[in-house]
Amino acid sequence: MTKFHGVVPPVVTPLNPDFTVDYPSYTRVLEHLIGGGSHGVFVLGSTSEVVFHDERTRQEILEHTVKVVNGRVPVIAGVIDPTTDRVINHARIAKAAGAAAVVVTAPFYTVTSQSETLDHFRYIRDAVDIPLVAYDIPVCVHVKLARATVTTLAREGVIIGIKDSSGDDGNFRYALLDLAEYRDVFLMTGSEIVVDNALQMGAHGVVPGLANVDPHGYVRLWDAAQRGDWAAARKEQERLCRLFEIVWVAQGRVSDGASGAGAFKTAMRSLGVIATNVMPRPRAALDEAETARIDVILRSTGLLG
Amino acid sequence: MTKFHGVVPPVVTPLNPDFTVDYPSYTRVLEHLIGGGSHGVFVLGSTSEVVFHDERTRQEILEHTVKVVNGRVPVIAGVIDPTTDRVINHARIAKAAGAAAVVVTAPFYTVTSQSETLDHFRYIRDAVDIPLVAYDIPVCVHVKLARATVTTLAREGVIIGIKDSSGDDGNFRYALLDLAEYRDVFLMTGSEIVVDNALQMGAHGVVPGLANVDPHGYVRLWDAAQRGDWAAARKEQERLCRLFEIVWVAQGRVSDGASGAGAFKTAMRSLGVIATNVMPRPRAALDEAETARIDVILRSTGLLG
Amino acid sequence: MTKFHGVVPPVVTPLNPDFTVDYPSYTRVLEHLIGGGSHGVFVLGSTSEVVFHDERTRQEILEHTVKVVNGRVPVIAGVIDPTTDRVINHARIAKAAGAAAVVVTAPFYTVTSQSETLDHFRYIRDAVDIPLVAYDIPVCVHVKLARATVTTLAREGVIIGIKDSSGDDGNFRYALLDLAEYRDVFLMTGSEIVVDNALQMGAHGVVPGLANVDPHGYVRLWDAAQRGDWAAARKEQERLCRLFEIVWVAQGRVSDGASGAGAFKTAMRSLGVIATNVMPRPRAALDEAETARIDVILRSTGLLG
Amino acid sequence: MTKFHGVVPPVVTPLNPDFTVDYPSYTRVLEHLIGGGSHGVFVLGSTSEVVFHDERTRQEILEHTVKVVNGRVPVIAGVIDPTTDRVINHARIAKAAGAAAVVVTAPFYTVTSQSETLDHFRYIRDAVDIPLVAYDIPVCVHVKLARATVTTLAREGVIIGIKDSSGDDGNFRYALLDLAEYRDVFLMTGSEIVVDNALQMGAHGVVPGLANVDPHGYVRLWDAAQRGDWAAARKEQERLCRLFEIVWVAQGRVSDGASGAGAFKTAMRSLGVIATNVMPRPRAALDEAETARIDVILRSTGLLG
Repeated sequence: MTKFHGVVPPVVTPLNPDFTVDYPSYTRVLEHLIGGGSHGVFVLGSTSEVVFHDERTRQEILEHTVKVVNGRVPVIAGVIDPTTDRVINHARIAKAAGAAAVVVTAPFYTVTSQSETLDHFRYIRDAVDIPLVAYDIPVCVHVKLARATVTTLAREGVIIGIKDSSGDDGNFRYALLDLAEYRDVFLMTGSEIVVDNALQMGAHGVVPGLANVDPHGYVRLWDAAQRGDWAAARKEQERLCRLFEIVWVAQGRVSDGASGAGAFKTAMRSLGVIATNVMPRPRAALDEAETARIDVILRSTGLLG
Repeated sequence: MTKFHGVVPPVVTPLNPDFTVDYPSYTRVLEHLIGGGSHGVFVLGSTSEVVFHDERTRQEILEHTVKVVNGRVPVIAGVIDPTTDRVINHARIAKAAGAAAVVVTAPFYTVTSQSETLDHFRYIRDAVDIPLVAYDIPVCVHVKLARATVTTLAREGVIIGIKDSSGDDGNFRYALLDLAEYRDVFLMTGSEIVVDNALQMGAHGVVPGLANVDPHGYVRLWDAAQRGDWAAARKEQERLCRLFEIVWVAQGRVSDGASGAGAFKTAMRSLGVIATNVMPRPRAALDEAETARIDVILRSTGLLG
Repeated sequence: MTKFHGVVPPVVTPLNPDFTVDYPSYTRVLEHLIGGGSHGVFVLGSTSEVVFHDERTRQEILEHTVKVVNGRVPVIAGVIDPTTDRVINHARIAKAAGAAAVVVTAPFYTVTSQSETLDHFRYIRDAVDIPLVAYDIPVCVHVKLARATVTTLAREGVIIGIKDSSGDDGNFRYALLDLAEYRDVFLMTGSEIVVDNALQMGAHGVVPGLANVDPHGYVRLWDAAQRGDWAAARKEQERLCRLFEIVWVAQGRVSDGASGAGAFKTAMRSLGVIATNVMPRPRAALDEAETARIDVILRSTGLLG
Repeated sequence: MTKFHGVVPPVVTPLNPDFTVDYPSYTRVLEHLIGGGSHGVFVLGSTSEVVFHDERTRQEILEHTVKVVNGRVPVIAGVIDPTTDRVINHARIAKAAGAAAVVVTAPFYTVTSQSETLDHFRYIRDAVDIPLVAYDIPVCVHVKLARATVTTLAREGVIIGIKDSSGDDGNFRYALLDLAEYRDVFLMTGSEIVVDNALQMGAHGVVPGLANVDPHGYVRLWDAAQRGDWAAARKEQERLCRLFEIVWVAQGRVSDGASGAGAFKTAMRSLGVIATNVMPRPRAALDEAETARIDVILRSTGLLG
């Protein structure tokens, strides 16, 4: 197994009421995740609300992360912006700040072909000497990384891994089969709710936003899968599925993006990990009634006394 | 009629082979457009390939534009990035650089609700004292600005205009009807091929990428519409429709985005306006065979001898 | 101009409380449309709720239509079902019942390619000797008839016309330009709200569901366009746009399909044309509160005293 | 476990060159499936190309099936057409012909809401006394059966099962959890490639089109899962994934629908089960080159000598 494996939570970015990063809370999040047994951390991804942060803030977040983590687990960093050269710039900063690998999406805002997407990854790899992970997240970039795209990039050595948040489990399976002999390439799922399945297929890791709320749960699930105890894995997964219902509490009132990341923040506040559930603009934060409903779910899943 | 009206081309950004901006060519583009009778220019929009450029380059492009235009026509500037506070930063720079108004899309990458989109525009308006234009471009941001969203923003005084590149002509018409009594609000279409229709509905302006290739054509169309000569407007529009076929020449080989903006650049090179048809990465430039096909169209529509 | 032109309303199918067709009301609908100056009628289309009716009922509706119309205007009949041979069967019945032409969509339920769609029309044309009209309605069949598909079919003589309900006005314009020299081919728009534009482009006819409520309005619009009085056309169109707001009165409570056809029925009941606003199952009918809101719109647009 | 469980292949409908059903081949298909250990058969579904067949042919197919199966396994029948009353008619015929249950999709062609979809199933259940199975197949009907829709229908006793061909495994898992205490309700996946996962989640059955080609494979997979041997289940599934590659052999030349069902037919012809690979119009059949490529896959997965 490569050094990138296991439970690698995409780290939530807690904010102060003035929308600056709340670093004391952020430090607690990192300790919460590492203390919970996480095998790595993924910062500056979608769950981190990366696209709400400018270049300077992203650099500070990453530098802070590297300092706090202090080599205990690998730090993977998202370098997410619409186009190639802007991503290259982020990747250079991430490398300088000490990231072990960078995570790159397909271009967005601009409409891209699979051929352009191939070139996008190749240009970045040529420009910056840091391991690349392909991030398949069509809900954000509105294009799916085709099976042939990711396998070509892996076979060429352009990417060393894939984070699949597409929800297309069949396609993920084929990527695992296609790359089975490429031992240095790792495939991770971004799912929160079919992690046991992904591991049964042979996935090398899991990057669930919900692990911010319950890292121990995902580590137990991972451990059960490693020892082949699929019944225990399923049982843990089903508890986590009930916990994941928090992401729909505010659905309809706020956007799906705000409902999900906002629920993680709200639950983490209830658990005492972070100080506020402030959301970056224009996302609306969850309100008191929604917090109460989330607390009910936290209690019923054993996280809150 | 407000000062923003008429033919307002979204200005193509010519590049050097090293992907830096080719300012001598860029100056010629601006003179070509103003000399062709354009009533304004829109820089740093989708046709300008704005999301390929970083903050510093955007600022240089805008400052160069303001200097060259030198008050002859209004300069409207796109301030396009995924989220509110990043857009506010761009808007401050644009204001300082002398933009007469800024053009703002819905958030992207993040999934947004109409309610969040309303707040997005309000936050920006509150933060920067410069006229805002709402840019409805679902093909890029993957959300449509609902009729109620744009009319609410206009009635609140948050926006002074709309650039509609959604292709939903019926919805555009309702926005025109809803805002008929708001004399200071202008509605512009981003279409190249149904401009006569938009003007017949009462649109105040037109922002066609194809005007980079043939500004005189769109100015003739505008003038015909102003004098109510709809037969002449239609005839000019139909010639421009034949010219617009250049955008499909490279379709399939490159992405739709590259095929469109790349065709404009290639035609402008053939017409002697710009020096190269270089595209920003990862977009591929049009090749010789495609250039030859574009030249045939330029000849058949009277632009090339 | 071919015999198919002008205002050709897609005829609403009024129902009895037991969901059978209310033929006395249906007769009144036909007289209302022909008396209002319609140049043809299109029965068994989407507005007619054709897919809710079985083969035998469709035949009865068509035979009743032909009898009532009695040659005063052409009767065009939808022959709408998922696949080729089923459509051929409907087309044979329609021919026997006296339809002047039949209207055919792309296959649905099954996912089709443009190539299969070409063959679909060719097979039908080969099997039944009756003029075919291609019906472009992606909102129902989830595939768009590509520009090349319809122009190929027209040039081959497979189809004699197109009913475009796609909302893609730019594509419609290109079809008009491509087929300008095919004098026997007619192109009709299914739009209710940009009819003046379609006619300005050169459309040969219009098939607006809203004409069931106000045939005179669309005939006035058509007549204004024929004499080149685009200002009058626009004014009439804008009144019809305000009337068209009835289709959104029930939006959200019922599906968009039920909200639209249901609004037409409810308005026609208020106008005394039909007896009920019963909808075929599983569509829900509009309720009293919605009827009251529709009546307000009917009054404000001059249709109800 | 209910009587509906296990491997229930959706039965391919072989055709003669004149597009009539090839009943001798069809009988062989049924014997091939039952002989392979299938626990039931699902006829007149998407894989059966049901929407290409008229009412009379559907009845014949079902009657032939019931006669050949002769009680050895349950026969489930699709009753698929766009709207409620047409489905009711099919359901009555299916009941009379001896189907053990009928499979119903959401309405199609017409745009429906979840509320209308609930009523659709309720009306059908009220009208015909036969067990209903909800068929979630958004690729065909373009609406997803929401989690709340299927669980409401199951709790009301309107449906006794679900066939989920949506590819949304997370949603499927929630339906399983929501209905865990409803012991008489069965949930089946339509997937071919993540069947081991679905069974690990607790799915009661599997309806893979590919089982027409290799029923033994899916029965081995089912048996491995029943005894908790997930490693064996995964190994069998991975072999079936390689076999499933046949469905992409003709992709691009023909539509996805024709490419999939056509590949099954072509493979079954190579295996000697059926006589032709004729497709219903307008679908194109696979050609010789594609057949050769399919035979390669059949050999590499051990099905052809």
